Amino acid sequence: ALTAAFEPLHAADIADLLEQVDDETRHALVRLYGREIDGEILSELKDSIREDVIAALEPQVLADAVRELETDDVVDLIEDLDEAQQDTILDALEASDRVAVEQSLSYPEYSAGRLMQRELVVAPEHWDVGQAIDHLRAQEDLPEQFYHMILVDPRMRPTGYVTLGRLLSAPRATRLADLAEESFRTIPVMQDEGEVAYAFNQYHLISAPVVDADDRLVGVITIDDAMAILDEEHEEDILRLAGVGEGSLSDGVFATTLRRVPWLAVNLVTAGLSALVISQFEETIAALVALAVLMPIVASMGGNAGTQSMTVTVRAIATKDLTSANLWRVIRREVLVGLHNGIVLALPLGLLVALIFGAPMLGAVIGAALVINLLVAAAGGMLVPVALEKLGVDPALASGVFVTTITDVVGFYAFLGLAGAMLL
Amino acid sequence: ALTAAFEPLHAADIADLLEQVDDETRHALVRLYGREIDGEILSELKDSIREDVIAALEPQVLADAVRELETDDVVDLIEDLDEAQQDTILDALEASDRVAVEQSLSYPEYSAGRLMQRELVVAPEHWDVGQAIDHLRAQEDLPEQFYHMILVDPRMRPTGYVTLGRLLSAPRATRLADLAEESFRTIPVMQDEGEVAYAFNQYHLISAPVVDADDRLVGVITIDDAMAILDEEHEEDILRLAGVGEGSLSDGVFATTLRRVPWLAVNLVTAGLSALVISQFEETIAALVALAVLMPIVASMGGNAGTQSMTVTVRAIATKDLTSANLWRVIRREVLVGLHNGIVLALPLGLLVALIFGAPMLGAVIGAALVINLLVAAAGGMLVPVALEKLGVDPALASGVFVTTITDVVGFYAFLGLAGAMLL
Ligand SMILES: [Mg+2]
Ligand SMILES: [Mg+2]
Ligand SMILES: [Mg+2]
Ligand SMILES: [Mg+2]
Ligand SMILES: [Mg+2]
Ligand SMILES: [Mg+2]
Ligand SMILES: [Mg+2]
Ligand SMILES: [Mg+2]
Ligand SMILES: [Mg+2]
Ligand SMILES: [Mg+2]
Ligand SMILES: [Mg+2]
Ligand SMILES: [Mg+2]
Ligand SMILES: [Mg+2]
Repeated sequence: ALTAAFEPLHAADIADLLEQVDDETRHALVRLYGREIDGEILSELKDSIREDVIAALEPQVLADAVRELETDDVVDLIEDLDEAQQDTILDALEASDRVAVEQSLSYPEYSAGRLMQRELVVAPEHWDVGQAIDHLRAQEDLPEQFYHMILVDPRMRPTGYVTLGRLLSAPRATRLADLAEESFRTIPVMQDEGEVAYAFNQYHLISAPVVDADDRLVGVITIDDAMAILDEEHEEDILRLAGVGEGSLSDGVFATTLRRVPWLAVNLVTAGLSALVISQFEETIAALVALAVLMPIVASMGGNAGTQSMTVTVRAIATKDLTSANLWRVIRREVLVGLHNGIVLALPLGLLVALIFGAPMLGAVIGAALVINLLVAAAGGMLVPVALEKLGVDPALASGVFVTTITDVVGFYAFLGLAGAMLL
Repeated sequence: ALTAAFEPLHAADIADLLEQVDDETRHALVRLYGREIDGEILSELKDSIREDVIAALEPQVLADAVRELETDDVVDLIEDLDEAQQDTILDALEASDRVAVEQSLSYPEYSAGRLMQRELVVAPEHWDVGQAIDHLRAQEDLPEQFYHMILVDPRMRPTGYVTLGRLLSAPRATRLADLAEESFRTIPVMQDEGEVAYAFNQYHLISAPVVDADDRLVGVITIDDAMAILDEEHEEDILRLAGVGEGSLSDGVFATTLRRVPWLAVNLVTAGLSALVISQFEETIAALVALAVLMPIVASMGGNAGTQSMTVTVRAIATKDLTSANLWRVIRREVLVGLHNGIVLALPLGLLVALIFGAPMLGAVIGAALVINLLVAAAGGMLVPVALEKLGVDPALASGVFVTTITDVVGFYAFLGLAGAMLL
């Protein structure tokens, strides 16, 4: 009955289901449904759950499961497993696949070498369509999916590729070289996977040959895998911007706490810095308690404006929209936007404060502090991520702390400092 | 010389360059380089810049440019132009393409109907490989890129598809139906583009037939376009989470200010709410100014922890990882994580405050307030986006305001309230 229920589901949906149920249910499912778990389901699972499921599978089921996968999926499957599980799976592979997988694993994590599959469809550049088609018909072991035939020179350097559509529709006597696509790109095997995903999206690649340092063909990356990486890179950015380490919803309380606490601890230190600033003005506050009531407004507005500039900047860096060609123009724009925001919002805020507290000067002070803080927030929100990027630090990871520290400190300092000077 | 400089560049890179230079330089480039601007460059440009460039092109150049594009790219190109520009471009198309584009435009914005191309490669399901290949060879007007042959029944309902790889490698007498892919999905023409992108990523689709309400084939969507949408949806989420409306780096100061001010204005109102809470405790603060120094710590920690929970939740909703199957388990986890975070951080904070201010009770009060606020932050960070999603509001858009308002109000209230009760 269970098998029947799973039958119509796609492997990706079964994997999601296994991720979403609690541990007990999952173990029960794997026990009952174990022999239906194939390689595709395993490769769709998140790392933490995958280890769990693999440990529970019978060796024979596991061996069958991985043997049906392409090499890139095997690499993705085993790269994060512990060594014992890795060995079990490598042993289950045919010798040629094992060598291919081990070669991929010899490239650094997050490199193109880890993403590529070794199953290739290649033709010498001097062949014609007829030769290519006869060759394909004669081959036993074609990849599950392929979209191009890669043309290579005698030293196995890719020189172009032909889409299968053109191959199919051209007369048999046509030379492959005459059918090659106009735009052709290869991917260096050491390129970072994020750059690979960027290239696929930017140049509308469907598949791309991967080459080693000597420009020799070593593998091919297909767009479905590049799309998954693009998704992962976004996930990383969005979580890092929020100060959350990677992890998944199925992680336990303890693991999650461990991932969240560090950023909160950093925030505790920077909040301490703000407290230090405020403590410089204890006498001012004691003389006018209204300042304590109003000061979080200035700081919080600065924090929000800073986050706006920072997010736009982090995103623009990620999409390569921010370059030396427009950096200064964009900085100038952000600062002017900060100034405008400040003026637009300082007016109602100042007026309201003046009316409610019956103190026009207090209104003027909070308005001025707001303008200053929004200006600083705009500049800081841009400059911090740009500087981090130049220093080789991921701007998504660390910008937030710096930006909000700046806006808190400046906000409290400007408001309380101006108040001390003008009101007392 | 300029033409030579652009020659080796991909259309997408030329478009980026046109986006990044200032208005004057761009106008100069378009004047000089106008006749080299082709349809591909136009479709890569961002909307705001594209209008500008199109307005500057000679009608003949524009007509040539759009005629070379596939229908989906024409739709993407013109959907955001003003009507006069739309008409110019529609008039430049061949009659059959114009009808196809107008039909696509009749579907709602952000629907699969807008994404699909009308150039199709179709075969009756009863054909064999030989018939299919002969048909392809005989066709004049095949799409630029295609990866599958869609099988249809006599009423034009898609029943499966065959990858070109299988078509190429199978003997001529093989029936197409026997080569069809195991997993086959169609996309409803009214489906939201975000859901389309999700389906491509989840099911590793390369292309998918689009069907109308009667299940009849109306178009096909390819993964390169789905990948671009995935990227856009992420951009939207990341910018909305930061309270930034859509826009581009090339927008002017005025447009950018208009997009940023609304969220800052909302934040001004909610910050006013926090000020209102603090004002209830003016006497308490007057009696113990140290409270004014410390209170931003509790609020800021809550804001950060709330943002963590909220971001994880917004992302989990977007990836469909949060479902009724695990909602309660995840909420329970978040609350427990909040409690653990609170305890782990309250201890050092409480101790430090007790030591620095020489007031053990003050340390106890701030520690207790922190625990309360982190608990509330964790719960609020989860429940707010989940509730918004249920109400049909994009959780990425509005969660932030609610969550930080909750953590500010609770933070100030808990800290100042406890302090008033315990210390005075
Ligand atoms: Mg999944
Ligand atoms: Mg990987
Ligand atoms: Mg992996
Ligand atoms: Mg990466
Ligand atoms: Mg693959
Ligand atoms: Mg794959
Ligand atoms: Mg990144
Ligand atoms: Mg671009
Ligand atoms: Mg569009
Ligand atoms: Mg959308
Ligand atoms: Mg397209
Ligand atoms: Mg396109
Ligand atoms: Mg969305």
